[in-house]
Amino acid sequence: MTVTRDACEAMDRDDPLGFVRDRFDVPEDVIYLDGNSLGALPRDTPEALEQATRKAWGKGLIRSWNTEGWIDQPLVLGGRIARLIGAETDEVAVTDSTSVNLFKLASAAMAMRPDRRVILSEAGNFPTDLYMLQGLVEQLGGRAELRVVERAAIADAITEEVALLVLTHVHYVTGEIFDMPGLTRRAHAVRALTLWDLSHSCGALEVDLNGAGADFAIGCGYKYLNGGPGAPAYAFAAKRHHKVMRQPLAGWMGHAKPFDFVDDYAPAPGIAQVLCGTPSVLAMTALKCGLDTFEGVEMAAVRKKSIALSEVFRELMTAPELAEFQLVSPEDPNLRGSHLSYAHQDGYAIMAALIDRGVIGDFRAPDRLRFGFTPLYARFVDMFDAVERLKAVMRDGVWRAPKYSVRQAVT
Amino acid sequence: MTVTRDACEAMDRDDPLGFVRDRFDVPEDVIYLDGNSLGALPRDTPEALEQATRKAWGKGLIRSWNTEGWIDQPLVLGGRIARLIGAETDEVAVTDSTSVNLFKLASAAMAMRPDRRVILSEAGNFPTDLYMLQGLVEQLGGRAELRVVERAAIADAITEEVALLVLTHVHYVTGEIFDMPGLTRRAHAVRALTLWDLSHSCGALEVDLNGAGADFAIGCGYKYLNGGPGAPAYAFAAKRHHKVMRQPLAGWMGHAKPFDFVDDYAPAPGIAQVLCGTPSVLAMTALKCGLDTFEGVEMAAVRKKSIALSEVFRELMTAPELAEFQLVSPEDPNLRGSHLSYAHQDGYAIMAALIDRGVIGDFRAPDRLRFGFTPLYARFVDMFDAVERLKAVMRDGVWRAPKYSVRQAVT
Repeated sequence: MTVTRDACEAMDRDDPLGFVRDRFDVPEDVIYLDGNSLGALPRDTPEALEQATRKAWGKGLIRSWNTEGWIDQPLVLGGRIARLIGAETDEVAVTDSTSVNLFKLASAAMAMRPDRRVILSEAGNFPTDLYMLQGLVEQLGGRAELRVVERAAIADAITEEVALLVLTHVHYVTGEIFDMPGLTRRAHAVRALTLWDLSHSCGALEVDLNGAGADFAIGCGYKYLNGGPGAPAYAFAAKRHHKVMRQPLAGWMGHAKPFDFVDDYAPAPGIAQVLCGTPSVLAMTALKCGLDTFEGVEMAAVRKKSIALSEVFRELMTAPELAEFQLVSPEDPNLRGSHLSYAHQDGYAIMAALIDRGVIGDFRAPDRLRFGFTPLYARFVDMFDAVERLKAVMRDGVWRAPKYSVRQAVT
Repeated sequence: MTVTRDACEAMDRDDPLGFVRDRFDVPEDVIYLDGNSLGALPRDTPEALEQATRKAWGKGLIRSWNTEGWIDQPLVLGGRIARLIGAETDEVAVTDSTSVNLFKLASAAMAMRPDRRVILSEAGNFPTDLYMLQGLVEQLGGRAELRVVERAAIADAITEEVALLVLTHVHYVTGEIFDMPGLTRRAHAVRALTLWDLSHSCGALEVDLNGAGADFAIGCGYKYLNGGPGAPAYAFAAKRHHKVMRQPLAGWMGHAKPFDFVDDYAPAPGIAQVLCGTPSVLAMTALKCGLDTFEGVEMAAVRKKSIALSEVFRELMTAPELAEFQLVSPEDPNLRGSHLSYAHQDGYAIMAALIDRGVIGDFRAPDRLRFGFTPLYARFVDMFDAVERLKAVMRDGVWRAPKYSVRQAVT
């Protein structure tokens, strides 16, 4: 099959999610295939920030913690994320960063399995997840051990030694999806707990935490949730654990009665116990607008379009002149999330040149070009035009210009 | 001495910091005496957020991490806070919340004193500080113990058992100032480390961390620094500790090479090692504007005006009809920070009624009315008018209306 631009235009006309693109302010001169790293700007965000700043902060001042409901934002927004990940509204809270939330929940889980030492994770997992676990293990001294095994060996490594299994649902490079229900079942069979990082799945595909029986989960607000650069993250804990869990970052916002100002910590009942310090209201405001872009959108439709977009892109990338790009994501769309990665030894320079031509994907060391498909605002013609521009970059050899090999801080 | 409104107007005319008020957008109908809880809105913040949102995020998208210097914000802003607290520019980083930063640095300090168990702090310290230490102690198991003693007993409790002394420089209720150089000297004499919470001092009075030989410090961005509700916090570590310290919240932003995406954590050299997850760019942008309000302002002048404002307020509060209000802050301005607290058994209702009359202070359980003085935008006439309105509230007895005794979530 050869995909034509006309065919892409037809798919856009027929796209049941086509109307959602209007909720975003995507620059006309850009084809944005990096919404899996930083979601695009929702159209309503600037005005909401202006209101939160000039009116709520400027005029309301300290009073707005009550009158504008600032104090409730972490649980209100958590409740809205719950719908996207198969959780109850009172099982999710928005707070801190993904990294910090991983530390909280991994700590809580380890304390629930005092007779076991092993935290099991995947080699090549998103680095901050491994780093945070290393920090935790070091702090717990002899009471914990991080065991990192290759992806293919994970299932067999879930033994009775394992206290906690920490996996990223969709891999940040390859896009591979872990079998959440199957691995959770396997973990529970040996009385191990599970902690899922949903950063690359929430907002892009159907996640069903409670359907899978997951124990804990975390995820980020700035990718598919469109909450803005460095948006607050979220934490999920299954309700059955709320009474027994105890996380160490016991800040006042997670206290049962934060405004009683007593000396002794007493965790809030329910998911509020994962809250810690005072959250950024402005960051929460932007995240709210990001979540608004999902209003009236079913995740099944998002997933369907995600697969369709990525399959068109994958098909176009099989053009003979792009044979040097080697797909490192699964061919079967059911086995991957909403991005595709290709290996190319000159990947960094090629991506830099491509970005200069208005197609924004990203690069992940050592040699991966990554293209993300965000069903809320990506169009099928974007797939076509992006691959055409990549062909042009390769034809011109423009990427060989010295300036494209100079690495920038964030790549 | 009786302070007249004319005298206050004269002090405002002569105020060398009078020009700074124009940097803020303080509502005309409000006398704001709670900038010690949430600083007022800087005039430049809305436009800066609009730019960061529409232009940097909306148009620049992921590229802005490099082109707009987002990635450098935590250290750039930290370097600017350094000037306000007597630190070197490469000893401070902006990151996470005050609570989370306390956990990081207290953990690091405990690991530097493996032969000792005791963390010493003050009974009635700001609750989140005590809560975070309780969480840490619980996590460290037998390796740590939190010892909380009354303020007057702190100095004598600094014994050779103590690994770490954690104190809030200016007390959040009484405003009392701890003798930072003296207590640090005393701690060092027994090889204990010090961690200072500067939330109620930074931006209001002269702090000299390196002059005092302090080891670690933390503080918040949303009070005197005017960074907006829930603004990011900061962390200081004396340079002499950078090579040996190790904090457990080992997120990718604190990695030596975060974009190499390797599996093993290696802390960044210097203060960057305290960074953790991805920071909120929007929250950082607002904090930058808050710090801009200090441009060209010397902390000595800030302190001088702070004392003058609070002395005028204190004098006015000695009016006979206000005799029921009992000062709980030190009378000597050299012994207190930039706020005054008064006890009154009906404090909650009185403060609620006063706020309705346009004078915004706050209430701290069980019975404290707290009035903060922010030298960058508070005027001497505000002191006069605030006390006059308090007299009116007491005269009318308006605070006895039932609605004023209904507690709100945040008080």
